[in-house]
Amino acid sequence: MPYEFSFSRRVEFADTDTAGVAHFSAFFRYMEEAEHAFYRSLGSMAFERSADGVLGMPRVSAGCEYLQPLRYGDQFVVSLTVREKTSKAIRYEVVFCKCDGDARTTVARGEMKVVYATRAHGCEEWTAAPLPPELSEQIEVAPTHV
Amino acid sequence: MPYEFSFSRRVEFADTDTAGVAHFSAFFRYMEEAEHAFYRSLGSMAFERSADGVLGMPRVSAGCEYLQPLRYGDQFVVSLTVREKTSKAIRYEVVFCKCDGDARTTVARGEMKVVYATRAHGCEEWTAAPLPPELSEQIEVAPTHV
Amino acid sequence: MPYEFSFSRRVEFADTDTAGVAHFSAFFRYMEEAEHAFYRSLGSMAFERSADGVLGMPRVSAGCEYLQPLRYGDQFVVSLTVREKTSKAIRYEVVFCKCDGDARTTVARGEMKVVYATRAHGCEEWTAAPLPPELSEQIEVAPTHV
Amino acid sequence: MPYEFSFSRRVEFADTDTAGVAHFSAFFRYMEEAEHAFYRSLGSMAFERSADGVLGMPRVSAGCEYLQPLRYGDQFVVSLTVREKTSKAIRYEVVFCKCDGDARTTVARGEMKVVYATRAHGCEEWTAAPLPPELSEQIEVAPTHV
Repeated sequence: MPYEFSFSRRVEFADTDTAGVAHFSAFFRYMEEAEHAFYRSLGSMAFERSADGVLGMPRVSAGCEYLQPLRYGDQFVVSLTVREKTSKAIRYEVVFCKCDGDARTTVARGEMKVVYATRAHGCEEWTAAPLPPELSEQIEVAPTHV
Repeated sequence: MPYEFSFSRRVEFADTDTAGVAHFSAFFRYMEEAEHAFYRSLGSMAFERSADGVLGMPRVSAGCEYLQPLRYGDQFVVSLTVREKTSKAIRYEVVFCKCDGDARTTVARGEMKVVYATRAHGCEEWTAAPLPPELSEQIEVAPTHV
Repeated sequence: MPYEFSFSRRVEFADTDTAGVAHFSAFFRYMEEAEHAFYRSLGSMAFERSADGVLGMPRVSAGCEYLQPLRYGDQFVVSLTVREKTSKAIRYEVVFCKCDGDARTTVARGEMKVVYATRAHGCEEWTAAPLPPELSEQIEVAPTHV
Repeated sequence: MPYEFSFSRRVEFADTDTAGVAHFSAFFRYMEEAEHAFYRSLGSMAFERSADGVLGMPRVSAGCEYLQPLRYGDQFVVSLTVREKTSKAIRYEVVFCKCDGDARTTVARGEMKVVYATRAHGCEEWTAAPLPPELSEQIEVAPTHV
């Protein structure tokens, strides 16, 4: 069962800012793109419509520590590791590595905790719900040495 | 009845790119912010929930011509002028002026056409609908000399 | 010599808005991503540092017509066609097609005109410049029937 | 000397996502907008050009805990409190409150640590530098009971 996932990306022009680097908020979008790609790799979607409402995975918390900048055109890998899993929530550790040929340099480290939630059609409120079995049964917590 | 509206804004850091200017896609967000502020000034909302579904104002087309860049911290004004109005659609001319003390320099010109549309709860499709009277009755087409 | 280029993309969660569709400004970021991937495919970069300054490709104008929405997770193709080329500028026609298995549905049409420009280090102003030969010699205008 | 700053904002349409709420990455842009407005209120800029290079304030870390969603059109206040200040860095506590008439509801809590840095013209690398006195002398750490 998977407890980690890697996702490759390039810094797009619109991700950068006038300081000449990827804007710090872009790393949070990158984290989410990696997480959603993880679910797709398992045959699930992070957001879906059903007959009764919508199913989604809102964030409970997110954080990032920036060690080195990424710049326009840089290729990098976002690596997710599952650090906690309960019936309703998953907590990921996230590492961003810049790729320079075969070399990898860690440029940022983050974490993100997400819950599973549903919203009935016509309703504004989201309600936390158990992770669906098809997703939950496929994800496990990483061994502590990873 | 109003046929024009002005909206003040500053270029935020996240709006800029590594070329040192506001990213070209930011001007489209600025246009929409100005348009939505226009509706708010008339007591209406560009997106709302009702008992039956949601009401919104999707864009049919949008364009912009860039004359001079805006940079981080620049203050500017987005001026909307109503150029066409039908029962379901409004077309705006948009002018962006940079403010430098009392001086105004036109930095971009655009246009945007929006329609009124509704979506029933539980449905994915939007359907064009007549502009609600409380909005439609308050907006008029600008005289041709403006 | 190439006069067209296709670029595949998926609608990411952060690209969507509360109307349940990809925000209209996202299409402009998609256009630019496709254009920059085009240059990369030809061994060039849309933005680079040299000893003297930076080289970039600012937009002169951009526009888009929205026919059908794109939603979270949708796969689509951005197709660029070179419609004009002068010593300093390129004008692209842009078509967005949603992919549903092998089916393709045109969801939006746009265009974008870009110029080549340089900025000396320590200077804020960009100056239009001739397209570098290594790029210019590899791009041609599409035959009129395409 | 100020150790706190409040900044008012509205959730714009482009800030929202298909889950019907402000995207989690938007809170990081809001934090930065508030921080930059704080410096402006003190007569300083978070990013500036000088004869020799550029001065900026890159983020070292940022995090946010999400308690309740913000939705399109919601008015909210971002409150910054200075929790640490060294010669080169400032750490802020950030609280987001939704405004409903006179009522305030805390919807998110975050923190952000920034450093002062310079980059010489023609150089890509940023170097940490002491906070300029005109900024440093105007900011103090909040008393512990705040």
